[in-house]
Amino acid sequence: MTDNARGAHDAGAGPGFHEMWRDLHPLGRSEDSGGYRRYAWTPADTDCRAWFRAQAETRGLTYEVDRNGNQWAWLGDPAAGDAVVTGSHLDSVPDGGPFDGPLGIVAAFAALDDLRGTGTGTDTGTGTGTGNGSGAGTARLARPLGIVNFGDEEGARFGLACVGSRLAAGRLTRAQAFALRDADGVSLPEAMTAAGHDPEVIGPDPQRLARIGAFVELHVEQGRALDLSGDPIGIASAIWPHGRWRFDFRGEANHAGTTRLADRRDPMLPYAETVLAARREAELAGALATFGKVAVEPNGVNAIPSLVRGWLDSRAADQSTLDVLVGAVEQAAREHAERHGVDVAVVRESITPVVEFEHALRDEVGRILTDGTARPGAPVPVLPTGAGHDAGILSGTVPTAMLFVRNPTGVSHSPAEHAREEDCLAGVRALAKVLKGLAGSRTTARSSG
Amino acid sequence: MTDNARGAHDAGAGPGFHEMWRDLHPLGRSEDSGGYRRYAWTPADTDCRAWFRAQAETRGLTYEVDRNGNQWAWLGDPAAGDAVVTGSHLDSVPDGGPFDGPLGIVAAFAALDDLRGTGTGTDTGTGTGTGNGSGAGTARLARPLGIVNFGDEEGARFGLACVGSRLAAGRLTRAQAFALRDADGVSLPEAMTAAGHDPEVIGPDPQRLARIGAFVELHVEQGRALDLSGDPIGIASAIWPHGRWRFDFRGEANHAGTTRLADRRDPMLPYAETVLAARREAELAGALATFGKVAVEPNGVNAIPSLVRGWLDSRAADQSTLDVLVGAVEQAAREHAERHGVDVAVVRESITPVVEFEHALRDEVGRILTDGTARPGAPVPVLPTGAGHDAGILSGTVPTAMLFVRNPTGVSHSPAEHAREEDCLAGVRALAKVLKGLAGSRTTARSSG
Repeated sequence: MTDNARGAHDAGAGPGFHEMWRDLHPLGRSEDSGGYRRYAWTPADTDCRAWFRAQAETRGLTYEVDRNGNQWAWLGDPAAGDAVVTGSHLDSVPDGGPFDGPLGIVAAFAALDDLRGTGTGTDTGTGTGTGNGSGAGTARLARPLGIVNFGDEEGARFGLACVGSRLAAGRLTRAQAFALRDADGVSLPEAMTAAGHDPEVIGPDPQRLARIGAFVELHVEQGRALDLSGDPIGIASAIWPHGRWRFDFRGEANHAGTTRLADRRDPMLPYAETVLAARREAELAGALATFGKVAVEPNGVNAIPSLVRGWLDSRAADQSTLDVLVGAVEQAAREHAERHGVDVAVVRESITPVVEFEHALRDEVGRILTDGTARPGAPVPVLPTGAGHDAGILSGTVPTAMLFVRNPTGVSHSPAEHAREEDCLAGVRALAKVLKGLAGSRTTARSSG
Repeated sequence: MTDNARGAHDAGAGPGFHEMWRDLHPLGRSEDSGGYRRYAWTPADTDCRAWFRAQAETRGLTYEVDRNGNQWAWLGDPAAGDAVVTGSHLDSVPDGGPFDGPLGIVAAFAALDDLRGTGTGTDTGTGTGTGNGSGAGTARLARPLGIVNFGDEEGARFGLACVGSRLAAGRLTRAQAFALRDADGVSLPEAMTAAGHDPEVIGPDPQRLARIGAFVELHVEQGRALDLSGDPIGIASAIWPHGRWRFDFRGEANHAGTTRLADRRDPMLPYAETVLAARREAELAGALATFGKVAVEPNGVNAIPSLVRGWLDSRAADQSTLDVLVGAVEQAAREHAERHGVDVAVVRESITPVVEFEHALRDEVGRILTDGTARPGAPVPVLPTGAGHDAGILSGTVPTAMLFVRNPTGVSHSPAEHAREEDCLAGVRALAKVLKGLAGSRTTARSSG
């Protein structure tokens, strides 16, 4: 950020920003790991939802929960249509970091405060008014402005990501959602009921989505691209296609202390070969492949396993690269399994095609961000990501863009995830500017394609 | 077994034998796997103990539970000393088979019936009397005869094998035993108390062991040596030295979809390399090495693990071979961990030195078994085993021998574990013959060393 830009935008966001983080900090935090365990429809999730509602009501926004449990806070009447919406999610992966999700919601409220000129300056005393670039009375907004908290983005509990946005967009059927179960066998509708949400009403929500003219999600970057390029803020170009494959290696349980090597059918051996093959193939393809989850039966120290089940997560810049990569890993798994007398079955558990964010909105966001800076027209970095997001789900239905905030270590999905405060505040200012730029005029540009 | 031997011994054991298996069959059996989950101090274990007590009392034997929870059934007064004891254990590994442990106890009661001439013939009608070779009225036994069920042999619940015999032999201290906890955090004394056994009295039992002149444990073979040699029965020479090592590979949790391969510190990769190195080193050493248990954190499909913890079980014919093997695996683990920026710590969780069974008792058992057969003097196979047993624990204190019954597939620690009925009955006859041979005269031979 240049001095000029900082001068234009450093006021208003600070105080509420610190206070919001302070209140969110203890919710669902594990003292053991220091990470967050905010899983859908758990008490920690309920606490986060209560926080969101309080933020909305404190600001005099219209609060509502949609049929799928997503929370909304409105400035202006969404029924007017062509709304500009921002937001993200508050749930977490197991032992996740503080920023993945919450940064997009904290930044949304802080940016709104900035736009309305209601930053109170009680936390830091660094400023109270609104800057030239973003400060704008409510009256100046031509379009309704919404902030959303999508439920169950990470899928940590029920194994499927972006349940709230998928349901809304009709990309997850009611029957499929009802069949979801957590590790304890609790079904999604049971969990919803326990948390006070009626599962009978879940389903597609086309009318609600039709009111949205643009959705902009701000998110901490989950890699080091911005750190390597030296930029605090970036714009998403696309989400890589990605998928999950379950490899079931079935051998024969036997006594580890008495079974001759020649008599063994040990599934751990082809599993290990496949882990290494996946890494090799990912290097060759310039892509990503990871075995991060394993389940072993009977999982006894002195027992040759009967089953080793490993999950492959793989992503690549395009679908054909991904297909070739995963095909090669499967081939390696089959060859090594056969050599060890082990059966292998490969099940594709999910596949998400490439998401190319709408070019017109993306370009408009870029123009808004560079407008009025020391280097007008200097491009904001545009980068792809391997991570899925609610923005990716909605992009098939609503014009959608994403902003990324620099992650200095690239660490994500870990208690060690970090973002510098100055970069987060730059994100708030950028989001405020984008929201004002979009909502200040009547219509968002749309690409023809 | 020759026709002559069969003719001499086929009577008496059958009926009670079938009935005992019928009653044991449902205890602690999982309908899901078909395997047994008879863990120490659980309700399934209590059921097995009630079964043992009923067997003892039905036969008019003196029943007692020692301070460490091991069960005993006596014919004659053990206080007379120089007792001959047989038995094994009733607990199981997770999803274990029916024979590992229980065969040694069922065979003990059946052999006792054979010796006393009380086989009832109600199950099969194949015979009621006792054969020439083993039939013997109680009066003919010069020494007390005991049957024992050692508690917690498999160590499935608290992670340490042979707890009952270790405590008795003073090879596990009270403090060590009190520190044992199961996966739910329940301590051994808490589990004992819940099952009705007072943990305050556990500890060494030298007086009880001093009354035992010979201990003979019959066990299903846990490999294919007897199947390959074509013999129904074998005698143990030694238990290989074996140990358990825990390998903790610590990397950095991160997002599987966004972290560049070059930025990763993925502990799954050196783990996989180490699994394959262990197999290679075991092949080179003519020994055994197995990774059968793994724990991953956070174990999420889209998370690079922060920790992969794998347990190595390794066994070899002698200690120096074992040391070289495990040293090579450790070296491989360290090299691959370093290459991937991962830390590795190796913890030796247990080590059990080689057990060479007493030669004098082993030779006497061999002589008794071949005496009076069609080929007197034809040797019964003598074979080592990689599996630990209560007999191995006691061998430092009491003259100890083991008999193995053929396992046609070699499968062990699995629901698919099997032994043919004819081989089990041959085991009963062999055990009866050995017990009679040992207990019929006043003193067991002892080696000088």
